[in-house]
Amino acid sequence: MSLPALKPIGIIHTPFREVEGTPIQPVFAEDAPGTVIVFPEFAEGLKDLAGFERVWLIFEFDRGAKMRLSVVPFRDTQEHGVFATRSPCRPNPIGLSCVRLIGIEGTTLTVAGADMLDETPLLDVKPYVPAFDAFPESRAGWFDAQRTQRTRADSRFAD
Amino acid sequence: MSLPALKPIGIIHTPFREVEGTPIQPVFAEDAPGTVIVFPEFAEGLKDLAGFERVWLIFEFDRGAKMRLSVVPFRDTQEHGVFATRSPCRPNPIGLSCVRLIGIEGTTLTVAGADMLDETPLLDVKPYVPAFDAFPESRAGWFDAQRTQRTRADSRFAD
Repeated sequence: MSLPALKPIGIIHTPFREVEGTPIQPVFAEDAPGTVIVFPEFAEGLKDLAGFERVWLIFEFDRGAKMRLSVVPFRDTQEHGVFATRSPCRPNPIGLSCVRLIGIEGTTLTVAGADMLDETPLLDVKPYVPAFDAFPESRAGWFDAQRTQRTRADSRFAD
Repeated sequence: MSLPALKPIGIIHTPFREVEGTPIQPVFAEDAPGTVIVFPEFAEGLKDLAGFERVWLIFEFDRGAKMRLSVVPFRDTQEHGVFATRSPCRPNPIGLSCVRLIGIEGTTLTVAGADMLDETPLLDVKPYVPAFDAFPESRAGWFDAQRTQRTRADSRFAD
């Protein structure tokens, strides 16, 4: 089965240069500022994105996470399957973060809640659409009984 | 800049064999049944996923969508940048759907709300975590004024 060759469509800049201390999710990023530089050849694709309050950033976990199928995630003390966690050490290192869109100027998006490392390769931007994406009452397994309140990464997934 | 070689971790089976008539999002899929077959070498990664009511399926749009930067999406009559839509014709053909998890038996996930084509390559499964993913009041640009109520695809993105 062939997969298409993915290519970065831009670069995400954040204040976080090392895994340790990087927020583990946008909601724990305390509105950490981020700048998403979309490459100029994709400028046309950004038309009308400015009306959305939040966007999904799909990006590559490009540093420090070897694939593991069982992990102790940051928000627990027990081991779970990697697909039951949002940990970076996935078979396909694809990250998904919902950030607040503050503004767009040219091909530069200013966002709040950046939880990825500086210079992370961007793969896609999708608008956040509550009708498709928001299920606030959805039961969330081990996460509903999370045993730690950790909000920043340590080095457990860094190599 | 190098990107990792992505590989399918499974296959998604749905009732939809042609683009035309396929639901455009899980919320319009009327609980269409889907079966996600995760390849056996990733079985360990599914531990404790069963406790989650919903999961994100990240998959490849592997048929019929050539890249376009401006599109008239299914839920509108006007053109928007592709990054302001959920259309399949993206620079990186990565799809994102939130489906309800009905059950897991071995490495087979039964889901409701499958909105992808039959035999779609699966790239990742992530748990749906309301604390990270649910922002029901988020403003949604053109989508809030959507001009059509279309729920099924036509052939506009099929080649």
